[in-house]
Amino acid sequence: MRIYDIITKKKRGEELSDAEIEYVISEYTKGTIPDYQISALMMAIYFKSMTDRETATMTLAMAHSGDTVDLSEFGTLTVDKHSTGGVGDKTTLVIAPIAASLGAKLAKMSGRGLGHTGGTVDKLESFPGYDTSLSPEDFFDQVRRVGISVIGQSGNFAPADKKLYALRDVTATVDSIPLITASIMSKKLAAGSSAIVLDVKYGSGGFMKTPEDAEALANGMVEIGKRCGRRMCALITNMDIPLGYAIGNSLEVREALDVLSGKGPADLTEVCVALATEMVSLSLGMEHDAARTAVLDAISSGKALAKFAEWIEAQGGDPSYATDPSRFPRAKQVYEVKATRGGYISAMNAEEIGNASVVLGAGRLTKDDVIDHSAGIVLKKKLGDRVTEGEIIAELHTSTESKISSAERILLDAICISETAPHALPLIYKTVR
Amino acid sequence: MRIYDIITKKKRGEELSDAEIEYVISEYTKGTIPDYQISALMMAIYFKSMTDRETATMTLAMAHSGDTVDLSEFGTLTVDKHSTGGVGDKTTLVIAPIAASLGAKLAKMSGRGLGHTGGTVDKLESFPGYDTSLSPEDFFDQVRRVGISVIGQSGNFAPADKKLYALRDVTATVDSIPLITASIMSKKLAAGSSAIVLDVKYGSGGFMKTPEDAEALANGMVEIGKRCGRRMCALITNMDIPLGYAIGNSLEVREALDVLSGKGPADLTEVCVALATEMVSLSLGMEHDAARTAVLDAISSGKALAKFAEWIEAQGGDPSYATDPSRFPRAKQVYEVKATRGGYISAMNAEEIGNASVVLGAGRLTKDDVIDHSAGIVLKKKLGDRVTEGEIIAELHTSTESKISSAERILLDAICISETAPHALPLIYKTVR
Repeated sequence: MRIYDIITKKKRGEELSDAEIEYVISEYTKGTIPDYQISALMMAIYFKSMTDRETATMTLAMAHSGDTVDLSEFGTLTVDKHSTGGVGDKTTLVIAPIAASLGAKLAKMSGRGLGHTGGTVDKLESFPGYDTSLSPEDFFDQVRRVGISVIGQSGNFAPADKKLYALRDVTATVDSIPLITASIMSKKLAAGSSAIVLDVKYGSGGFMKTPEDAEALANGMVEIGKRCGRRMCALITNMDIPLGYAIGNSLEVREALDVLSGKGPADLTEVCVALATEMVSLSLGMEHDAARTAVLDAISSGKALAKFAEWIEAQGGDPSYATDPSRFPRAKQVYEVKATRGGYISAMNAEEIGNASVVLGAGRLTKDDVIDHSAGIVLKKKLGDRVTEGEIIAELHTSTESKISSAERILLDAICISETAPHALPLIYKTVR
Repeated sequence: MRIYDIITKKKRGEELSDAEIEYVISEYTKGTIPDYQISALMMAIYFKSMTDRETATMTLAMAHSGDTVDLSEFGTLTVDKHSTGGVGDKTTLVIAPIAASLGAKLAKMSGRGLGHTGGTVDKLESFPGYDTSLSPEDFFDQVRRVGISVIGQSGNFAPADKKLYALRDVTATVDSIPLITASIMSKKLAAGSSAIVLDVKYGSGGFMKTPEDAEALANGMVEIGKRCGRRMCALITNMDIPLGYAIGNSLEVREALDVLSGKGPADLTEVCVALATEMVSLSLGMEHDAARTAVLDAISSGKALAKFAEWIEAQGGDPSYATDPSRFPRAKQVYEVKATRGGYISAMNAEEIGNASVVLGAGRLTKDDVIDHSAGIVLKKKLGDRVTEGEIIAELHTSTESKISSAERILLDAICISETAPHALPLIYKTVR
């Protein structure tokens, strides 16, 4: 088998065989095929795409290129959730304890934030003592006892994806639906859960900018997951504006606790209930309506919040912060951003609002940046709200006063105020099963 | 300027600016842009092509990436010829002395053979003493005195092309008309002649397999050459079957001398007269018909043959071989290949016949192989000829008896004999001016 012939075949728009795809992934991971041939192949795939069969084969080959987690002892109860990333996206903190409180098993590895999107692991580290690097034994043991553990990514998961993604990132070949699908799904397959719920974001702060592109990606991922033997569902949700009002680590944890206490903002609550319903339905084999009822009951009964505290405590964190969120330290500086004119909030650029929170210390521009867990933004107004000139539209939280003025400038540029009320995009655009 | 943005732009099918193309060529030549980004760009160009303006800019940037030859002292008299390569293509040996005998200046650098196609420099080395590596001073001096010098490629000509071609060769991005055009024309521009005649081959033994593809390439090259200030012409000629009857170095020299003596095979003579006519017309500013008359007269008067001998002698070779070709050593083994059945020669695969000559020692599979100048093939029958079973269809010339059986097998597979006479493709398909 020769990589030259494989590039030629794909360039002509022909379908690659399983053996050819497996050869590419295994030899590239080993380093026997050079970057310059793979980048040419990636560009050919960008133009000629891949069939679902090709994508599934590539996904499996990438999933098997390194370590995999064996969750078979939990049978069909395991469920994972993946978000394509967003601003103010704290849904994992809400839906994981809901699902676990109803009997699902969540053995979850999660990422850290980079750029304008946050990471669940950073948010959890707002709890003093929370240990994101459990040993495999402790991780499995906690899932057995408590039903939930969320740790940082460690080990050698899908090294083929790491290498391929780094190459695609510098050769303008990221934006190919089958390649994105293989990248995301290979990591999810390696993580071992038998059911997977995807939250595919669309809009200015999402990975996909239009609902149509997000739907194409969701369709591809659900199809590939099913071909690889997983139970799948994807929600396509709005990331044109931030989800909820809080952006920044402990600020988001507090908002997540609000939702679990039944007093969270409407948009965040709606997305969390929808995602949790799909997770419960897939993992416990419940009908959709019954699952939704169970989810709402887990919130109103306080069962989900209790599970949250149990989880944090089991993993070394201080659970009193969960029951009394006022214990989270408040940032030294809290600055009020005021509307420069009156009117309707007619557009919010979620990505730029995320960037403003990074400036305040809530996120990272490079992997080595240190996070300020109390930093971030609390929006006071959202899309469609009416404001008067001088009215407070957001709070900036930071420990570094000098950052405020540039964060304020970014935030004001990211929020449009107009005479007429905007037409909002749907919060949940579609469910793909 | 960032290469990532340039790849993205071309991927979207947008036109690159002159500055962007110049940046790519100069930074890649310097080594500051890595191979993996350029191979992605080449694949994007394969799919999205380049405009004539982009191609001309790339061609000039590549031509200026290294040394260039300054032939301005010869004014408009200089003329170069380039063939896209073929089997049995000895036209340079015929047309260069014809044009020089009429006053044109040929300061020509030529290549060595590789694979199934031969090289003019190898053929010239059939003459004992012929020096293919003159110093620049001797090269110029000979052009001044004799009107013609042909040497091997030396110096650092179009290093951007060398590097790009090597990368395209392993990433399946060779077959792009603008990239082929830029590659060929950059070297021709660096070589300095003010007029260029192209012989674009089509058919089984040619670089382009169909006359339509050959015409597209010819149109592109003529247009780019004109945009870069050269006087241009391209003939599209048949390489579906070998040109003439001889394949192999001294065997081809002898056939070229036959044409210069007015007794060459019809197909080879016709192509040589057509090419020489264009060269003379472009370099001496003659009308086509007058140029053709002058060319035919140069042959019939013996002027061109005398110029050939003068050239060989000036460059250190023994001119007595030119006047008495029987002096060329005959290969130790001459084996007659016989028709295995009767009928018409209905197809000849030029590329495979070239490969058979390489097996016999006439060519190279790798750059370091040594050539046997007397080895090769002399066809006795060509396309459309009627043969009886057992009749001699070709002679195999070699110094290594053990090579004969495999060369015979390749040759017999390359020559079809059928009941019905074939429909031959035109020898000269089109002229592009």
